[in-house]
Amino acid sequence: MPLISKRGLLMPQSPIRKLAPLAEKAKARGIKVYHLNIGQPDIKTPQVALDALHNLRREVLEYSPSDGIRSLKEKLAAYYHRFHINATEEDIIVTTGGSEAVNFAFMSCLDPGDEIIVPEPAYANYTAFAMAAGAVVRAVVSTIEEGFALPPVAEFEKLITPRTKAILICNPNNPTGYLYTRSEMNKIRDLVKKYDLFLISDEVYREFCYTNAPYISAFHLDGIEDNVILIDSVSKRYSECGVRVGALVTKNKEVRLNVMKFCQARLSPPLLGQIVAEASIDVSPEYSLDVYNEYLERRKFLIDGLNRIPGVYSPIPMGAFYTVARLPVDNAERFCKWLLTDFEYEGCTVMLAPASGFYTEPGLGRDEVRVAYVLAKDDLKHALAVLAQALKAYPGRTN
Amino acid sequence: MPLISKRGLLMPQSPIRKLAPLAEKAKARGIKVYHLNIGQPDIKTPQVALDALHNLRREVLEYSPSDGIRSLKEKLAAYYHRFHINATEEDIIVTTGGSEAVNFAFMSCLDPGDEIIVPEPAYANYTAFAMAAGAVVRAVVSTIEEGFALPPVAEFEKLITPRTKAILICNPNNPTGYLYTRSEMNKIRDLVKKYDLFLISDEVYREFCYTNAPYISAFHLDGIEDNVILIDSVSKRYSECGVRVGALVTKNKEVRLNVMKFCQARLSPPLLGQIVAEASIDVSPEYSLDVYNEYLERRKFLIDGLNRIPGVYSPIPMGAFYTVARLPVDNAERFCKWLLTDFEYEGCTVMLAPASGFYTEPGLGRDEVRVAYVLAKDDLKHALAVLAQALKAYPGRTN
Repeated sequence: MPLISKRGLLMPQSPIRKLAPLAEKAKARGIKVYHLNIGQPDIKTPQVALDALHNLRREVLEYSPSDGIRSLKEKLAAYYHRFHINATEEDIIVTTGGSEAVNFAFMSCLDPGDEIIVPEPAYANYTAFAMAAGAVVRAVVSTIEEGFALPPVAEFEKLITPRTKAILICNPNNPTGYLYTRSEMNKIRDLVKKYDLFLISDEVYREFCYTNAPYISAFHLDGIEDNVILIDSVSKRYSECGVRVGALVTKNKEVRLNVMKFCQARLSPPLLGQIVAEASIDVSPEYSLDVYNEYLERRKFLIDGLNRIPGVYSPIPMGAFYTVARLPVDNAERFCKWLLTDFEYEGCTVMLAPASGFYTEPGLGRDEVRVAYVLAKDDLKHALAVLAQALKAYPGRTN
Repeated sequence: MPLISKRGLLMPQSPIRKLAPLAEKAKARGIKVYHLNIGQPDIKTPQVALDALHNLRREVLEYSPSDGIRSLKEKLAAYYHRFHINATEEDIIVTTGGSEAVNFAFMSCLDPGDEIIVPEPAYANYTAFAMAAGAVVRAVVSTIEEGFALPPVAEFEKLITPRTKAILICNPNNPTGYLYTRSEMNKIRDLVKKYDLFLISDEVYREFCYTNAPYISAFHLDGIEDNVILIDSVSKRYSECGVRVGALVTKNKEVRLNVMKFCQARLSPPLLGQIVAEASIDVSPEYSLDVYNEYLERRKFLIDGLNRIPGVYSPIPMGAFYTVARLPVDNAERFCKWLLTDFEYEGCTVMLAPASGFYTEPGLGRDEVRVAYVLAKDDLKHALAVLAQALKAYPGRTN
């Protein structure tokens, strides 16, 4: 039997998805599983988007242009302008989800052996895409004690080598919910400028900022216009993760030319997803406000609830719809598996994402989990009760 | 400005898509462009598939499982059984088009520096995906004089080194329309067995075989079950290229585990495309027969028409819906550009794919083009007339 690739062998499984088979088995045993592991909201997709499918007049579901349907790009440009992101449709390349935008950004900017600095904990699939590109993630660790604030710039500078090509940030942050301040963003800008690095900025959660602090886009930073690559996705803001439509936005023409080669190789992003995404941008402001208020409430409800469970601690996330919480357990991954294989309370259990998968350095996040607040309050309430019972029953409880 | 990746810089642009901006400009000048460059059929998507969208009841367009919706996998397995392809749903991983299946097969089987042998001319994006994986394509050249038959096995063996990991075939072939014989497939099997290689077999055109010769799948070959990776796509057979749904099918568990890591990193294939694909598999046999007969006629019409143009030669393709034809021109790429920038006849021009992009060795295919017969006969007729006029007018004509 021929050998599979070392690249694949070394690649970690997604911490968000790798326990999915255990969850399926639990469901097969008749257990209800509350999915707090994945950013899949239960919020309804906008009706105007669903209607675009119901009323579809096309007779041939043909390829779209490799960089996306022009009318969608125009609408995206207008959407970005609302956030003072000065991008024209020429700067926008539509991708198959934000995932592909990250993948193509890495493939287009990083060669094997090149290094990319990422504040951690970080969205685990960045590491997967870096490995696929042969690039090396160098982590700057933020801590739960500091509320996951950006570590001092000196920590970044320590990691810079001749192979450093880029800094990647996610703002508002997945998994921590942290929102970078103007001062932090300026420091990143100075660093990017000083060492002439790419700044890859994943801002898919921009509509979910819950404090009065402003959302500072990488596109708002002066003097690094050719360094910035924005990652976007319609998945979260319109609750349509399954349509697989995102975007890579940059003023850098060379990057766009490189990215387009990868775009042409995969022919086109999904046509139907683009039709849905385009319709979604026209959603009423009421929809967005309702969704925002719903998450605001869920956030308060979840964080209060978590911190009331003895031994559990969660900082207050400022954005997105996740938090990284500390649990009184020996090993969060073992606990997450145990929840699916050995535990039930009132016929239910909870699925969480072990936070160790959000750090590249082994040993970090060992007692932390990422919790997504993507379920309705009643479900969250019961999920919290189940979690509290589980922590009482878990044999590896530490305090 | 930071440097973009060498990988991207070296990567060729797609020969199918790189002239697209010139075509857009021609259209902006009011010229009708016949697209013979891309495998985008004008055939209608099955009504049952469109109805699946019109009647969609879902309220949340959520992520699907990373390996695809189970009911789709079950239908695909039943579909493959019709072709005596013994695959169960466990062997099937749903991908974002056949493109992603090729990409994931390469990423999972090939490390940087590994070699893959490909009979050429070959679908150009194989090379792009190989470059993305850091792998090296070693070409076995088939020729228009031999009707693009598989070169002798000795030609393959000459290329085998300790780094050779796989052979890739496309059957029926894009771009040549060649259909591999039982004897050729057996020789490939023996080679795969002798050197313990992966056999990656792209069989997305299996429903389009126009002679009485049988379609031999790589899954029909005995004794190499763990070596075979089948690439599939619903794009061509149901005329729904835009939905981006394909599959990677293999009995090799290790490969599937590796592929699943890449699948989880990109979260899920497009939900809506999967809904359309699943409905399409239920299409009436009449639809498939009508489509088949339509291509059969177009093939005869196109090949006859091409061979009637003085100086043009095309072999008779046995399958798929392409042919590689020789033109009486100095440089087919220059001719293809000229068609879009400097020529029109009765307000029309033709877009072709220069065949040089389907060879990795520079200089090959210089006077060849790939022609797709994906347009209705009346359009093909006029496109042929336009091409004949263009060849008369082209300044670089050779005979």
